Amino acid sequence: MSSTYPPIPRAAGDRPRILFAPAREHTDKVFAPEVMARLEARFDVDRNDRDTDLTEAELRERIAGCDGLVTGWGANDPRVLRPRGAMALTPAVLEAADRLRIIAHAAGSVRQMLGGVWQDYIAPRAICVFTATVEIGYNVAETAVGMMIMSAKRLMEYALHVRHSGGWRSPAIPVDEQHLFGAAVGVVGASDVGRRVMRLLRPFDVRLLLFDPYLDASAAAALNAEQVALDELFARADIVSLHAPSIPETRHMVGAAQLRRLRDGALLVNTARGSLIDQEALVREAGSGRIRVALDVTTPEPLPADSPLRAMPNVIITPHLAGQGRYGHLRIGAATLQALEDFFAGRPVTGAVDHARWERLA
Amino acid sequence: MSSTYPPIPRAAGDRPRILFAPAREHTDKVFAPEVMARLEARFDVDRNDRDTDLTEAELRERIAGCDGLVTGWGANDPRVLRPRGAMALTPAVLEAADRLRIIAHAAGSVRQMLGGVWQDYIAPRAICVFTATVEIGYNVAETAVGMMIMSAKRLMEYALHVRHSGGWRSPAIPVDEQHLFGAAVGVVGASDVGRRVMRLLRPFDVRLLLFDPYLDASAAAALNAEQVALDELFARADIVSLHAPSIPETRHMVGAAQLRRLRDGALLVNTARGSLIDQEALVREAGSGRIRVALDVTTPEPLPADSPLRAMPNVIITPHLAGQGRYGHLRIGAATLQALEDFFAGRPVTGAVDHARWERLA
Repeated sequence: MSSTYPPIPRAAGDRPRILFAPAREHTDKVFAPEVMARLEARFDVDRNDRDTDLTEAELRERIAGCDGLVTGWGANDPRVLRPRGAMALTPAVLEAADRLRIIAHAAGSVRQMLGGVWQDYIAPRAICVFTATVEIGYNVAETAVGMMIMSAKRLMEYALHVRHSGGWRSPAIPVDEQHLFGAAVGVVGASDVGRRVMRLLRPFDVRLLLFDPYLDASAAAALNAEQVALDELFARADIVSLHAPSIPETRHMVGAAQLRRLRDGALLVNTARGSLIDQEALVREAGSGRIRVALDVTTPEPLPADSPLRAMPNVIITPHLAGQGRYGHLRIGAATLQALEDFFAGRPVTGAVDHARWERLA
Repeated sequence: MSSTYPPIPRAAGDRPRILFAPAREHTDKVFAPEVMARLEARFDVDRNDRDTDLTEAELRERIAGCDGLVTGWGANDPRVLRPRGAMALTPAVLEAADRLRIIAHAAGSVRQMLGGVWQDYIAPRAICVFTATVEIGYNVAETAVGMMIMSAKRLMEYALHVRHSGGWRSPAIPVDEQHLFGAAVGVVGASDVGRRVMRLLRPFDVRLLLFDPYLDASAAAALNAEQVALDELFARADIVSLHAPSIPETRHMVGAAQLRRLRDGALLVNTARGSLIDQEALVREAGSGRIRVALDVTTPEPLPADSPLRAMPNVIITPHLAGQGRYGHLRIGAATLQALEDFFAGRPVTGAVDHARWERLA
């Protein structure tokens, strides 16, 4: 990777300096002790041992002289500048970053964190941006598949019936409708998560329908999927699962027209981003009870307490936890270490953002 | 297959006569119209178009002269002799079955249905018994995997929190515990369902532990599983899933000693049969809140209304619906047709019970 921003040379033998911005809870969750030990052996690590993320003022002060910056998903702490899902990487912080060559994001999406500094700082300096989206994808894909089975098979409805009614089977809850095995599953977006979901679904003998405007037909065929238009996907799928990035073009890509095409009893799963769905249209369509819905993401988050979606028996909502999970977390730490090692050894970095594709990035 | 009970020869060109015992609801659920059309073209089919299974008296009358009998899982109808999960195949019915050569069970377990007539009628006459356990296994395996993700990831707890609290994430519900990805999953019983569960789990990068006293180590290795003793399985697994047959030797195979070995937060899933678990011991261990439990089967069924298991927040119970699902159902019908065609053409019957293995059969 060429850089228009040549780093200040260090004395021979000096180790690259890496600043950790995330709260200690994030660091401990993501970096196994042996991974952290290897990081500290290889790099001059400036850890943040506090239970909150570094603030903008702290970042400005501590980022000077650092070759690398490790970021995370952002603590839900009111003292942090951008409390939900982003670190405080403002222009002022980037101005102070006099030798920064790599941002290693030990989390998923970098869009919210870097949106405000990409054009003026990240792109011109050709700073390498690593993201662990692929690793987060394990947890998200697992959640998507779990929601498909749970909702299609009515497991929660029946579990509640058994818990509260004192009864057993209920004629009011169908058990012979479409299930995951043999279903037509429409995947929107052949992202890392979308591809992983398709891999998990393979042994369930599903028919895969795929909508992704950036994928050519041969790539879709290689994924054992039939490439279709978005409207056709909604018309033909028993289950639709959203895995597109949250970018201007995808805002409300699922609107009244798409929802209307879903067959009665079809299931819509969203573990990606709330912005993909026109939520007012969803409230109307789901409110009829005609379709089934499982959401891990909403607009906004938290979902307002008075949202009618909360009370609908055909709607399951979890609070943006799809990416949570020890397995994926530890993979994030291992991949972040690998990225830093590869970058400073001059090797290609798996998980590095292609600067030319920033506009389409999740 | 040799028979000590030679059939009465029919006139050349006569089609074998097949009696359908199940209620029409079962037949319609399992046999797609095109499958039924093929059955009726090939065989002289005596259908039961009523909404209840044939009674013992009706079976005795109509089975005379029949070469084959199609049975099902038994309607929950008080007029039927054995209302729960078994057809009325009494000795009197078998006495009247003067040419019966095959029982094609368009459902799963045949143990309850044939237990009373096996030694005196089925075995000596070498009647071929086909069961669609393999096909039912698709639905059951899907349910087991769905319960693993749903329970491990706390999806239902969180969905209820969002529905009822008006809040979002809750510190009282952990989201970073063990999930399916990367978990050590202990499978008890390399049955058809157990093997299918292992196939579904493969892309989740799990470590498989397997207990099956009838399997040799090389067969376990071929399943990518480590063969272990039952107690070791319970000690090492993050998730235990039961897929053993319900036979005298497996009654209460999961007792206080095994449950105690589960680590805190481990998950026990039972989609097989309630008898495998010492339910009183389970009430005690689950009552502590130390372990998580997902049950599709209980002792007895329906579970008594006052069972303390119903109210435990760490226990999910569904009412024996794991085998339900259109995909598996239609596979049952197709496999039953195939079995009848193969049998009367003198070909080997996939899904036929090995008479020598009756004692271990589910």
